[in-house]
Formats: sequence, structure tokens, C-alpha cells
Amino acid sequence: MTLLISNIDIRDEIFDKMTATDSSNGPAPANPPTEPRAIYNRPVEDFLSNVSRFKLIETTLREGEQFANAFFDTETKIKIAKKLDEFGVDYIELTSPVASVQSRKDCETICRLGLKAKILTHVRCHMDDVRVAVETGVDGVNIMMGTSALLRQHSHGKDVATIIKSAIEVIEYVKSKGLEVRFSTEDSFRSNLVDILSVYRTVDKIGVNRVGVADTIGCANPRQVYDLIRTLRGVVSCDIETHFHDDTGCATANAYTALEAGATHIDVTVLGIGERNGITPLGGFMARMIVDNRDYVTSRYDLRLIKELEDMVAEAVQINTPFNNPVTGFCAFTHKAGDHAKGILRHPSAYEIIRPEDFGMANYVHFASRLTGWNAVKTRVGQLGLDMEDEQVKVVTAKIKALADVRPLAINDVDSITRGFHQTHVEG
Amino acid sequence: MTLLISNIDIRDEIFDKMTATDSSNGPAPANPPTEPRAIYNRPVEDFLSNVSRFKLIETTLREGEQFANAFFDTETKIKIAKKLDEFGVDYIELTSPVASVQSRKDCETICRLGLKAKILTHVRCHMDDVRVAVETGVDGVNIMMGTSALLRQHSHGKDVATIIKSAIEVIEYVKSKGLEVRFSTEDSFRSNLVDILSVYRTVDKIGVNRVGVADTIGCANPRQVYDLIRTLRGVVSCDIETHFHDDTGCATANAYTALEAGATHIDVTVLGIGERNGITPLGGFMARMIVDNRDYVTSRYDLRLIKELEDMVAEAVQINTPFNNPVTGFCAFTHKAGDHAKGILRHPSAYEIIRPEDFGMANYVHFASRLTGWNAVKTRVGQLGLDMEDEQVKVVTAKIKALADVRPLAINDVDSITRGFHQTHVEG
Repeated sequence: MTLLISNIDIRDEIFDKMTATDSSNGPAPANPPTEPRAIYNRPVEDFLSNVSRFKLIETTLREGEQFANAFFDTETKIKIAKKLDEFGVDYIELTSPVASVQSRKDCETICRLGLKAKILTHVRCHMDDVRVAVETGVDGVNIMMGTSALLRQHSHGKDVATIIKSAIEVIEYVKSKGLEVRFSTEDSFRSNLVDILSVYRTVDKIGVNRVGVADTIGCANPRQVYDLIRTLRGVVSCDIETHFHDDTGCATANAYTALEAGATHIDVTVLGIGERNGITPLGGFMARMIVDNRDYVTSRYDLRLIKELEDMVAEAVQINTPFNNPVTGFCAFTHKAGDHAKGILRHPSAYEIIRPEDFGMANYVHFASRLTGWNAVKTRVGQLGLDMEDEQVKVVTAKIKALADVRPLAINDVDSITRGFHQTHVEG
Repeated sequence: MTLLISNIDIRDEIFDKMTATDSSNGPAPANPPTEPRAIYNRPVEDFLSNVSRFKLIETTLREGEQFANAFFDTETKIKIAKKLDEFGVDYIELTSPVASVQSRKDCETICRLGLKAKILTHVRCHMDDVRVAVETGVDGVNIMMGTSALLRQHSHGKDVATIIKSAIEVIEYVKSKGLEVRFSTEDSFRSNLVDILSVYRTVDKIGVNRVGVADTIGCANPRQVYDLIRTLRGVVSCDIETHFHDDTGCATANAYTALEAGATHIDVTVLGIGERNGITPLGGFMARMIVDNRDYVTSRYDLRLIKELEDMVAEAVQINTPFNNPVTGFCAFTHKAGDHAKGILRHPSAYEIIRPEDFGMANYVHFASRLTGWNAVKTRVGQLGLDMEDEQVKVVTAKIKALADVRPLAINDVDSITRGFHQTHVEG
């Protein structure tokens, strides 16, 4: 073990020197070393931060059902719920049982599956809805109140009083049934700060398990999230659940920053499907979190199931996994530019913050383009079982670049150039 | 005009009251009013923030060429460069002219197009590269130094001195030719803070136009970005360019937060294409920025060209626009859940922070699912030219939900149910 570490240290030194002096010289080790990824340092310990102790509320079967293409029949819902449970999500949230007759039946069916994950359903703050919810067999009720229009402007207390009055009845009813209860406002980031804090403080005192903060329209930015959650953390003692839409591309960053400010639970869906362009995606969020605390994430969640979950949901709602999806996008671990390829061949951590193998993926060095470098070509020469001097590899690299200027290259093209050169100049 | 405004005010009041008391009653106005979007308030003016005065460095033709699928022939490069110029990007960055023979020719060709945008090329910190770069006719040279391995650990000054020595020669050469020059470190967020600041301070004193901060591996999070850029803002007087990879889903949020901390220039590519899963996407970034300052964004950039640019690049690199792409994803402005549909029909701003029409897009209310509400169905009844009482619409809605429990519905299915009911119960 000591030997291995000191071996890596020596390699590091060589790598550093080469990078410093000339980025196109020096021998590459035959195989990439498997050292742990260098992780950036969190310089000052932050006592508010829950990035190393968050919980997941998986809502593909509620928020995800609001995705334009989603139609989940009972069988599909069961399949997704079981796979999410196998992955290890802490909660599974289901569509309100009052949405339709089948929604109620499906909710009851999933509650009877005996999953490890706690089952929630998401209902409006009406006694009519909540009475049905508690009868389905769920472990908890996620109550949402459409407060945004009310709280967007200064509401002079009267509207706050109205909200609180209807909240109390509903919350106490759910508690009397021995179930978990969360109370969430809607469009929390456009609501009046004092009013919203007043509502949260009151429901905390009534004894909710969680309050919910929702960026319903996807307008929030990370520093705004930090400010609101941090302030809220000082006002309530219960858990804080957050829900971020991705209309302006910040849903993953906002979820992460909410944890830094003291949030405890994050809403996610597979591939981020939901209303409009969706919410924080499960896979992307895991990519974000593993960078901070690999042990926590890998000990709780089976990351190798993410690809399977995404394929299952993508098929069910008839979409393709985005080309740029974190972790599972087709080129998430593909390295193309010469410097990047050289770095990755020596030290994966040079250009990868995530270990692809943690997710059951592998990295790939692209060598069939005009941006390639001779280090990538040299590796391919080795894979082909050929033997060449470095100077010869450089000549082959120049030939590859010249052809790549003319047209897109396949791996076959490059191999053919390489083998041809080898036949003529090495074998011959 | 006054009448219109007061009309909207009255509507707002009605809407608020309805939301407060009962979310399933009350008449919907025939057409959505076109009031300005309610924008969340930035409560305290931040003197560091450049969110209302940023510039775009568009690097589809450099970073984008590092995307796994990218092969741009000369004609494609010219087409993309012209369209980016029409859109209004401030800078266009091109692949290093030393990457290949054709890369150099293409660089020279694009410089001769006479575009309004300034043309940059991106080269390593070597005199060999820089000499070629200044001869291509570019307006500026973006110099990048592979400093990460050097600066990742404490470098005890010696390596910093080496970096600075080679930087000085290169920077002074570019300046002597009367061109803009930027000096960027690599993997800035895993570099030693003191070392990196020392390098930036020195190149600032030599007189670079911009320093560059690069999250080369996509590990940075927003608060970390804010801290580094804000610190750097106090150390250098030149402009600050930032470059964020998206491996952990934070590239758009990080770019935004960098501007809040005093960065001036943001690197983007069309659809975010680049190494691995790419960088901050042009379209998503515009979605983020328009929320803060619509006047600035719409006065400088022709947002209606984003869809065309994305289609052009997607075709060139053979990918599909992600289903969840901000603004141009197929359902970015589609509203499905009953409450959302009701809100959007009354007030687009209730569930949209972006005006789709700013980007040449339109919103759509989904009414063919079990999550639909009677307000959405009522609007469809109106579109079909039918006349029904609210109670009748509610009956039709129940029929739609019942069928939607059984199978996915097309618009035709819903229209057929609606027309059938109308024939039997209204006409008959």
C-alpha cells in the first residue's frame, strides 16, 4: 500500500514537471493509475451545511406525472417505485389520490408493496383532499398551499391569517392519524419574506415534520436560495424540504446551495421530469453530491442503478436521455482535446471530478479528430498491440490530423492509418 | 392604457381571492392578459454585481469543437459564426490555429468575414502558438496555461515563478501587436488560492485585458465561485472572464453567481456543447439573465435566433435538443397540472418567469390527462367554439379524467368527448 502511494507520488511529480515545461513530451504510463480523485477542499467547516446528511424525496410519480409526456399505468408505477426503493431513496411521493379514481387506487397499491422507502402523497391544503390521503395507507402527507398570489404582495396580515387558519385544521388532522406531515408554500421565492416566515413559524409550532420551500416557477438563483433557507433555518426547528424547477438552469445548484444553508430534504425526479422543463434530476444531483462526500452518497444509494432508472423512465415517457446529461450522457466521460486526453491517460483525476466506475460507467479517450494529441494515439497504438517509437507515433498523429481536416473520422480510419504506417515503417 | 392597467388590477384581486378561498371555482377570462411578468425583487443593490452588464464570449467554434461528435467543416463554421454575430455575441472564440492546418485557414477565413463580434483564438502559453495566432488576423488572443497540476498543491513559489516567467513573454508579445490578451489558469477551483492570486495579480500588472477563471473539470459550486471571484475582484483591475463545465449540473448557476461577484465575461456555447458534457449553454444562460434584466438582454441580443442557432448546431453535430432544454425544450412552456393550467390561463406570470414570446416561442396548456382541471377544459371548449355552462364543463372534465385513467389521451380524444357531450346535452 505504501509502495503504491509512493509510486503515485512519483508519477505526480513527473506529470507536474512535464506539464510545466512542455505539454507534448515525455512517456505516458501504460495504464491510467486508479488513485482516488483529488477533491477540492472545503476550506472552512460550515455548521449549517447538510451536504453530508441530506435525504431524497423522489417525486417521479407525482411531479414527474406532470411532465407533458407522462402517462404511467399501474404496472409502470410499481416498476419505477420498486427500482427507486432498490436505489435507496428515502421517500417516494405520489400523485394526489383525488386527482382521479385510478390515482387513488395506485396510491393504495404502492403503499401495500412494503417498500423500505416512506410513501408520501402530495395534496392541496383542503380537508377534502387530506381525508382521502390518510386513508390510502401512506406514511406521510405533503400538503401544498397555493400561497403565491396571496403572498406575492404585502398581504397586511389578513391573508396570512387565512392561510394559517386552514393550515392548522389540516395539519392537526394528519398528526392525529399518526402520519408525517409537511406544509409547503408555493412560489416561495416571489412571496413576501415576512409573511412567508410567519406562516412557516406557525406551522412549525403546530408540529409539522417538515416545511417545504418551492421554487415553483424556476426563478430562484443560488445566493437567493442560501439567504432564504438560512433565514428560515433560524425560524423553524423542523426539517426543511426544498423543490426547485429548472426553467433558468439552476435547479441542481439551488438544491445543493439549499443544503449548504441548512435544508434537509431535496425533491428530485428521474431525469428531472416534471411541469415544463422539470426539476432537480436524481442523477445530476447525485453527481453534484458525490463530489462533496463520496462515502455518504455511495453508502446510502446504489448509484449503479441510475442508468437503469433513467432508461426505464425515458422509455415510459418516450424521451431520449439528453446528450449532455450528467454521468449518463453519451459523452459525459469522453475526452477529446489533446491536453485533456493526455491528462486523463495519466491521471483520471486531472480531468474528471467523478469516478465513472462509481456509476457503473467508463471513460473514453477520443483520438479520431484534428484536436487529438500524440499521447492519445500512442495509447491506441498500444491497444492495437503495435510497437512504435514516440517519433513514429508523432508522424502518425500528423497524418491523422491531416485526414481529420478533410472529413469526420471513425476509429476504423485512425486504426487503418496507424496499421498502414506500422506495416510500411516498422514491420517493413 | 389606464383602463387596461386598472382592468388587470381588478383581475389580480379576483384571482387572489379565488386562490385564497377555493381553487376550483370562478369564471376564467377568455384570453390571458398580457401583463408584464412579476419579477422577484433583488432586495439590496449589490455594487459588485455585473448581472446587468455582462458580455458573452461564444466558444462553440473552440470549446464546442471539443465535443465528442463535433466536426465542423469551413462552410459550417462560417454559417455558425455569421449567425452568432447576427444574434449579437460580443466575442467569437476559435480553435487554436496550431491544432491543424485547416484550423489555421478557418481562423483566417472567419477573421476576414468582417463580423461585428471580436474574434479570439485560444492557444497554449507558448511563443510558438502565440506567434501563429497573431498572424491570423484575430482581434485578441485567449491564452490558457495548464497550471492545475502545478498549482493544485502548495507550490512553494518556485512553480509560480516559472508560470509568471513564461506568461510575461507571451503577454507582452501579444500586446506589442496591438491585440487584446487574456490569461487564464486551468482547473482554477482546485488550485492553491494564494498561488493563483499571485499569478493573476502579476499578469494584471503586465496589462492583460482579462484574466480567465476556468472550472475545467466542472467541480465548482456557486458559493465557492462567489468567494473566489469576489476575492479576485479585489486583486485585479482588469476584466474577469469565467468558464464553467457542467459535469455536476452547476454551469449556468455558476456563471450567474460569478457575475454577482464581479466577473465581466461569460463563456458559452450553443446547447452547451464542449468537452465531456459541455459548458454553460447560450440559451439556458439567456433564460437565467433575462429574469434579472430583461431590458439589457433584449436590447443587446436577438433572442429569437436561439432556436435557429440550436437547430443549426444540433444538426451539425448530430444530436437532439434535450427534452428539458431551457426555453426551447419541447415542453418548456407546457402546463399540465390543473392548478398550473388554471393559473397560466389567467396570468401567464403565475407559472412562467420567462415570456415565451421574447424567444419567439409560445406557451401551451395541456388538457388531455388525468391531472387536468375544468378551467383548462373550459378554455378548450371556447377554442372549439362551443358554448357550455360551468357545471357542464365539470361533467366533461370528469369524463376526460376517467378515460385518461385507462390510457394516454390525444387532443382528438378530448375534443371528441367534449363534442359528443355538447351534441347530446347542449344541442340535443
